[in-house]
Amino acid sequence: MRIARFSIDGNVGFGVVEGDELDVIKGHPFAEFERSGQKVPLDKIRLLPPVLPNKVVAIGRNYAEHAAELGTTVPDVPVTFFKPSTSVVGPGDPIAYPAFSQELHHEAELAVVIGRMCREVPRERVKDVILGYTCANDVTARDVQQREQQWARAKGFDSSCPLGPWVETALDPAAIAEGLTVQCTVNGEQRQLGRTSDMVRSVEDLIVHITEAMTLLPGDVVLTGTPAGVGPLNVGDEVAVTIEGIGTLTNKVIKRG
Amino acid sequence: MRIARFSIDGNVGFGVVEGDELDVIKGHPFAEFERSGQKVPLDKIRLLPPVLPNKVVAIGRNYAEHAAELGTTVPDVPVTFFKPSTSVVGPGDPIAYPAFSQELHHEAELAVVIGRMCREVPRERVKDVILGYTCANDVTARDVQQREQQWARAKGFDSSCPLGPWVETALDPAAIAEGLTVQCTVNGEQRQLGRTSDMVRSVEDLIVHITEAMTLLPGDVVLTGTPAGVGPLNVGDEVAVTIEGIGTLTNKVIKRG
Repeated sequence: MRIARFSIDGNVGFGVVEGDELDVIKGHPFAEFERSGQKVPLDKIRLLPPVLPNKVVAIGRNYAEHAAELGTTVPDVPVTFFKPSTSVVGPGDPIAYPAFSQELHHEAELAVVIGRMCREVPRERVKDVILGYTCANDVTARDVQQREQQWARAKGFDSSCPLGPWVETALDPAAIAEGLTVQCTVNGEQRQLGRTSDMVRSVEDLIVHITEAMTLLPGDVVLTGTPAGVGPLNVGDEVAVTIEGIGTLTNKVIKRG
Repeated sequence: MRIARFSIDGNVGFGVVEGDELDVIKGHPFAEFERSGQKVPLDKIRLLPPVLPNKVVAIGRNYAEHAAELGTTVPDVPVTFFKPSTSVVGPGDPIAYPAFSQELHHEAELAVVIGRMCREVPRERVKDVILGYTCANDVTARDVQQREQQWARAKGFDSSCPLGPWVETALDPAAIAEGLTVQCTVNGEQRQLGRTSDMVRSVEDLIVHITEAMTLLPGDVVLTGTPAGVGPLNVGDEVAVTIEGIGTLTNKVIKRG
């Protein structure tokens, strides 16, 4: 099931996407909910970020080929950092190129959407705390990242975390382990192509690792790292992240106004 | 004026602290508000974290002596990292020692409470975006920090960010520049003692630096770094952060249950 968050005529709601329509949800997708049967064509609505995370917890260098292209190796312990709620934008929203960087990079990633409050999650319970999956772009000011020891500014600036287009709740964890393609194109040209089977640490590993330290809340998002092929984004570019079985997240790069 | 957040009989509100009483606020302290004239003795209420930050943005190694005690130097660019909302606890709340660390450290810090939504704040406007100041303890899993490249787990675990006891709105920025004492005691014994005049970057510098990249929201908190003297916390310890002109934030260390 694909759960989208949307606005129409200034009202915000959730709905289940089927084909080119959306069936409006009564209730909240993090609890029990019903479909209303009220159908809206997708081209009449604006899709919003599918969740409003309190925090995004992200993992660096989780694909060996990407670590190599950055001139590093896969770390002994997952590199764990935050992207704040103020960095999140939705499908179709602009990525605003900030003045403090001259080198934005795209990083296509599988995003895990947390469905329930949890801490110290045992491996076998990880599936119970996941609502579903969406696409993310961990947009990075690479020049700032190289200059600054901690990445709050390089990876936490406004609009550095596009999420969407919806949360796919039916993705089989076995399919992630077997390998879904994670792709990034810029202006239609392929830049990144990887498979989730190449992740050094699995979704289960990462949720165990993160929740050893901290509580995750419903709507929090875990980014699972990016495959090789990261590269520059320029003002005017259209960047698209496509994950097999989920969909495509497209954003245009503009100059920050 | 000292603005506290409190609960009494399950109800949560804000109030102005005067002596050993609190005058309950009508409205919200981030907007126009009035005092109700309804006075409550401080010993009848429970003080809560004075704000519920969406994010805490913290600065590392902003006192030269502390950088030296960690075997490092003051960085060319401020080390900027996040502590998530789930790390925040209030005055009197326990700091829960997590199982994934064997070396928690206290770090007493002056905390800036943001009063209005802002981005790319010019230096001369910084004073306009600040609601006031409070005490913070940037509790750090030092062993984890040394092992992990990014500090999300080492400085972002649950209860790693005690804040309080209240927001002092009348603190004069000139007094911060001239030097307020920042002190930390453990079980009544002094561990840290510094002066805000020894901060390498001023509050103004830090707000400019952070908001170059990201939007700060009302209630967001900026931690300004810790003076020398950091050291271990053990289960059973009572740790107190006292800042001249603000007050004292006290927390007890317990084993995470």
